[in-house]
Amino acid sequence: MNSYYKVEEWSIVEEQFDPSKQEASESIFSLGNGRMGQRANFEEDYSGDSLQGNYVAGVYYPDKTRVGWWKNGYPEFFAKVLNAPNWIGIGVEVNGIELDLYKLKVIAFRRELNMKHGVLERTFTVEIGKKQQLEVTAQRFLSIADDEIGAIRYSVKPLNFEAEVAFTPYLDGHIRNQDSNYDEFFWDLIDTRAEQGGASLVCETRKSAFRVAFSMKYDLFLGGRLVETEASVIGESGYAGNRVVCRMQVGEEAILYKYAAVVSSLNYEKDALLQAGKQSLERAYQTKYDALLSDHKQSWEEHWSHSDIVIGGDAKAQQAIRFNIFHLNQTYSGKDERLNIGPKGFTGEKYGGSTYWDTEAYLVPFYLSSAPSEVARNLLIYRYKHLDKAIENAQLLGFTGGAALFPMVTMDGRECHNEWEITFEEIHRNGAIAYAIFNYIRYTGDKEYLSEYGLEVLIAISRFWRQRVNWSDVKGKYVMLGVTGPNEYENNVNNNWYTNLLARWTLKYTLEALKYVEEEHPLRYVEIAGKTGFDTATETGRWKDIINNMYFPSCNEKGIFLQQDGYMDKEQYFASDIDPVQRPINQHWSWDRILRSPFIKQADVLQGIYFFEDDYDLETIRRNFDFYEPRTVHESSLSPCIHSILASKIGKKEMAYDMYLRTSRLDLDDYNKEVAEGLHITSMGGTWMSVVYGFGGMRVKNDRLHLDPSLPANWKSLSFKIIFRDNYLKIYINETAVVIENEHGPALTIMLRGEEQHLDENSTLTCHIQHPPS
Amino acid sequence: MNSYYKVEEWSIVEEQFDPSKQEASESIFSLGNGRMGQRANFEEDYSGDSLQGNYVAGVYYPDKTRVGWWKNGYPEFFAKVLNAPNWIGIGVEVNGIELDLYKLKVIAFRRELNMKHGVLERTFTVEIGKKQQLEVTAQRFLSIADDEIGAIRYSVKPLNFEAEVAFTPYLDGHIRNQDSNYDEFFWDLIDTRAEQGGASLVCETRKSAFRVAFSMKYDLFLGGRLVETEASVIGESGYAGNRVVCRMQVGEEAILYKYAAVVSSLNYEKDALLQAGKQSLERAYQTKYDALLSDHKQSWEEHWSHSDIVIGGDAKAQQAIRFNIFHLNQTYSGKDERLNIGPKGFTGEKYGGSTYWDTEAYLVPFYLSSAPSEVARNLLIYRYKHLDKAIENAQLLGFTGGAALFPMVTMDGRECHNEWEITFEEIHRNGAIAYAIFNYIRYTGDKEYLSEYGLEVLIAISRFWRQRVNWSDVKGKYVMLGVTGPNEYENNVNNNWYTNLLARWTLKYTLEALKYVEEEHPLRYVEIAGKTGFDTATETGRWKDIINNMYFPSCNEKGIFLQQDGYMDKEQYFASDIDPVQRPINQHWSWDRILRSPFIKQADVLQGIYFFEDDYDLETIRRNFDFYEPRTVHESSLSPCIHSILASKIGKKEMAYDMYLRTSRLDLDDYNKEVAEGLHITSMGGTWMSVVYGFGGMRVKNDRLHLDPSLPANWKSLSFKIIFRDNYLKIYINETAVVIENEHGPALTIMLRGEEQHLDENSTLTCHIQHPPS
Repeated sequence: MNSYYKVEEWSIVEEQFDPSKQEASESIFSLGNGRMGQRANFEEDYSGDSLQGNYVAGVYYPDKTRVGWWKNGYPEFFAKVLNAPNWIGIGVEVNGIELDLYKLKVIAFRRELNMKHGVLERTFTVEIGKKQQLEVTAQRFLSIADDEIGAIRYSVKPLNFEAEVAFTPYLDGHIRNQDSNYDEFFWDLIDTRAEQGGASLVCETRKSAFRVAFSMKYDLFLGGRLVETEASVIGESGYAGNRVVCRMQVGEEAILYKYAAVVSSLNYEKDALLQAGKQSLERAYQTKYDALLSDHKQSWEEHWSHSDIVIGGDAKAQQAIRFNIFHLNQTYSGKDERLNIGPKGFTGEKYGGSTYWDTEAYLVPFYLSSAPSEVARNLLIYRYKHLDKAIENAQLLGFTGGAALFPMVTMDGRECHNEWEITFEEIHRNGAIAYAIFNYIRYTGDKEYLSEYGLEVLIAISRFWRQRVNWSDVKGKYVMLGVTGPNEYENNVNNNWYTNLLARWTLKYTLEALKYVEEEHPLRYVEIAGKTGFDTATETGRWKDIINNMYFPSCNEKGIFLQQDGYMDKEQYFASDIDPVQRPINQHWSWDRILRSPFIKQADVLQGIYFFEDDYDLETIRRNFDFYEPRTVHESSLSPCIHSILASKIGKKEMAYDMYLRTSRLDLDDYNKEVAEGLHITSMGGTWMSVVYGFGGMRVKNDRLHLDPSLPANWKSLSFKIIFRDNYLKIYINETAVVIENEHGPALTIMLRGEEQHLDENSTLTCHIQHPPS
Repeated sequence: MNSYYKVEEWSIVEEQFDPSKQEASESIFSLGNGRMGQRANFEEDYSGDSLQGNYVAGVYYPDKTRVGWWKNGYPEFFAKVLNAPNWIGIGVEVNGIELDLYKLKVIAFRRELNMKHGVLERTFTVEIGKKQQLEVTAQRFLSIADDEIGAIRYSVKPLNFEAEVAFTPYLDGHIRNQDSNYDEFFWDLIDTRAEQGGASLVCETRKSAFRVAFSMKYDLFLGGRLVETEASVIGESGYAGNRVVCRMQVGEEAILYKYAAVVSSLNYEKDALLQAGKQSLERAYQTKYDALLSDHKQSWEEHWSHSDIVIGGDAKAQQAIRFNIFHLNQTYSGKDERLNIGPKGFTGEKYGGSTYWDTEAYLVPFYLSSAPSEVARNLLIYRYKHLDKAIENAQLLGFTGGAALFPMVTMDGRECHNEWEITFEEIHRNGAIAYAIFNYIRYTGDKEYLSEYGLEVLIAISRFWRQRVNWSDVKGKYVMLGVTGPNEYENNVNNNWYTNLLARWTLKYTLEALKYVEEEHPLRYVEIAGKTGFDTATETGRWKDIINNMYFPSCNEKGIFLQQDGYMDKEQYFASDIDPVQRPINQHWSWDRILRSPFIKQADVLQGIYFFEDDYDLETIRRNFDFYEPRTVHESSLSPCIHSILASKIGKKEMAYDMYLRTSRLDLDDYNKEVAEGLHITSMGGTWMSVVYGFGGMRVKNDRLHLDPSLPANWKSLSFKIIFRDNYLKIYINETAVVIENEHGPALTIMLRGEEQHLDENSTLTCHIQHPPS
């Protein structure tokens, strides 16, 4: 853990330049707009360690899987998020010297990510020659108002010398993935053009044949006046730009505005792509920087207006929660149901940028409350559209009859990970996908979703569970063998409690869904039954038998649910017994040692309790929490949030707060020493949950919003905004009161600490809290 | 299963040419002499499917491991047996037409592997032009009398036309491994030379820097007279030879004798290597083909004189057992303790050619009985010399204090496989290595071995087991979690009965060994204690506790030992229930399905019962056999032999015979449709065991040889030769009598069917068998 960045409520600020932190900062200061994103690389050349990273949503490369020994059923490819051509590049040469912060003496440096407005700004002063100081301010944004556009304002001022400055705004397609096998190149360079004032580049991904067009134009102002100098046009294959030179007086400022458009074949015909990009570019170029920026800022303000969280009295926590919300909103806009959220978003290559169960378990809640319901709905429809592929995936493993196993990792519906422990065994993801349907409907009340999309998915998943369990004569129960739970520090275990729980629940919920659709949408029911070949008579009987006779491991002596068969045979000791220099254990211990240890990577039994908390009394939750928490090493970013929420629930306020800091400042304080690889985007949804579900105690039950707040001791207040069905609500909590403002929407009834509270249209309700005498 | 090859007692014969069988035949007809070996590739060019394969013992390449996700503790490299330069090549051009059996019309074809003499001969007639028939006879051998030498007699006769024939004997270093990643080349070509009458080639392996020198000379006879024609000398980098042309009359015979020497830096200084090779070559060249062949045949006869098995009345079984013994003797000579036996010997690349536990479990028994004791002893010393590396290997996984984990797969003592399930979990190999020490001493009586080498290995392995088990409060026993047993259709199971058994046994045996060395070699004991830091007081107490409190899973209801915890939770059905078109399941089922099935790849519980049969009464053995046999799919070549031996023991003669055929004719009849990749060399030791231990009922207990024969119904007789300590014995068994001939060695007492029988020096004992009335 470090505290390298300055704590400000709305900004992340870096006040010195440290090349050893450059890759970390490139992650932290990343920008995105849902359609594309990029690491905070410098515009000018930089020869120090850096991970150049530009990404276009939905554009990936199916790289060959690398395995030691092929096993039947392995996916053919491992999808990789593609590092795309660099469009931010502006080469700067001052009196013949390349501007390169790694080589020059840096006098002053400040980098700020303004989260309120989604703007990255960097100001620095360098020594070009002996005592020749140059001041540079670079500002850029990726417009969320017009998501094909990015713009840069790059200002240069020689403070105490006359300078000849050459600017080379360019596009560069010679980009390799850091994680490519044998340094392979994943792009074909289709078309490179350059002309006076602009350039374009069309590339196509190998194998997957996504085509992307990049185009750019620029204006150069000197002393406030547009420079009309002739530029040298540079156009080699895959690299195109202009070089313009200007002579500058002492103290004079040159500003280069660079506009770029990025469009892909996901949204345009390939043949029309270049033209489409140029049109978008022209639109931006005509609008000009300040107006583009203003639109962009306004869009951000709109986002914040219904997703901001304000924490009183704890600046670190305040900064952290905004950092998380900011990146979530940057990564996914919910406009396009073909897109999803990779573990690193647009901030790095790791984990292939594909979709995991993180989306359903950790992100759907955030988007449900922070955006119109279409956004979360689109995340669900994403899976619905992959249903056929999920059925094929199950068939590859030997399942039949329309059983679906959704992939552990995917880009297009096909499984694209390459470890049998993960792809074949970590099947609980199927349950999370079913749960997200339930969760979406519980929150939005949009039951029609079942009829339109949900039921088909539920039937297919239930068919999978039915085949995946088997009857054990010895136990007189149905068992589920050979699985991996959320705790990936176990493999091929029997009867993972969490997986068994989700399987049984899915079967139950599918029966309910069938009943609902049959009764409310009988025609659609017949249609679905026809399409899926579903037959109540032959299928549901066995489902019910499984529901009634599923095996759940437990330790009666300790009164807890058992993570899996045999867990108590392990040597029992605690995470606190591990020598701190050996943490995280996944960087210090052999896989063998980790597997045999009792240590839990992330919430597993507790994840199940979190999902279905109403099924357990507080004492049961407390006993399980007290057993599992000390054994959990939280070496997944998805772990502390769940522990934080449960700790809030059972009144362990201090632990809830520790866990909150751990999840919310995971990247800012680099807990796991890996932020250089990119941010943990998907766990940011968990951070949001630990505030709103944890400290805010928000739940939705029986079509009503429930609140049961409990703030950390050092927080003066907490306020968050949520969209709940037709209402836009602002909730303010401090030690003495809860204030609920119905900013927009009809009257509604809310359950506050278990009591009904009525809110009229456009009204505010203040409830004072009675503290028990201490 | 097919019956492509003709059944002859001493030969394998192929009587037609079928290009689709070429790769299979290249495996079947392979030659070797312990120092080098090769597939039965054609000398002349062949453009059909073929796996060109030449191998030099001990020469390997450490290729990069390919894994999906790196896990701590993984080995850095995967060792690959190296496909070495081709020295058999003889290009043949007849009237300008390349002799290529894939392109020309083959009129007649016969290939024979004479196992008695280790000679491969091929005779064929092809049509060169219209009705122009050419007869060729190619004979070759790899001398076991002089293991640096190979020789070829290549005869050509135009039957009905005049021909100009050009011979190009050559050496070719441009060889790639079929299994190289990305087609990499593993050899550096150091030196290529050619001159009138000969050529040489020096190559060095990349990374591992083994240097090998190949050299060749030849004589060409035409009509019985040495041809003195001028040859064209060909010498490009990595390819060197001569081209000689001769004009031939109708019916005239040209014979090319090609001599080659192969020497490596394992045995010579690199600088002297080329010279050493040339000296060896000159020695062979001066000796000439017929004399070399005669020495070679004599050596083979000597081998057979003490390792042959004769089966009366069953030609297929007879051919098969000789095929197995022949390949075992070709693969390993026991002269060099640095060498070992790879799963495919010199017949293919698969499995990397490295050493597995196969050696200790399946091969040591054969060499113990078929060769002087030094041979098996060298196999043991091979592991002793790897002890330090085995300790390092254990350290990599987190073990301490001199605990050793011998590698699952190795070339030089380091682990070089690349699956965690195998390298980290399949730890039972440690037990097999300990067992081989016990087995060697039991057979040879060479207890000194403990003091000299064995004890150090046993201490280190026992230390490993001690750390690998942990106390389970729940079970009140020591448990061993997260292992893979011999049945690799399970992974990461708890309490594999076989592994637990071997662990406990090792601890016991180490205590015995300690006592023996302490009492009989007190000085050496002190030396070993110092070297290993062994302290009886602190270490053995825990060992005894583990011995007394080890957990063994069982199913009391069925009266069987249980393969692992939870095995009975699986759906229980039988191998015979599987649709035959789905067999072998490893080629048809997903890994997920295999893992969750009850099917057993190879003997697991039964392997343990086989090792320690005297600890179990016949009824117990029978119950376990009856339970596990129907669940075993025998998809490892190491499985049927153990089942065959146990079936013999419990009187299931028919099954014992079926299993015997399956193991002995596995390659000849290509049961698993994979013989093209190479032969199953290590399982051939198991074939031998199923005859001698199974049908012969041979055991060694309390320094005495025991025999309890029981022949398959269709066998008229069985006779085998064994070396037992100072005696060379021939045992003949038929329906009515057992005849034991003490061919060489002092008088001894043998237990025949449980009764003592005395044999004088050079005497023969005949015991008539009383058959119970049927």
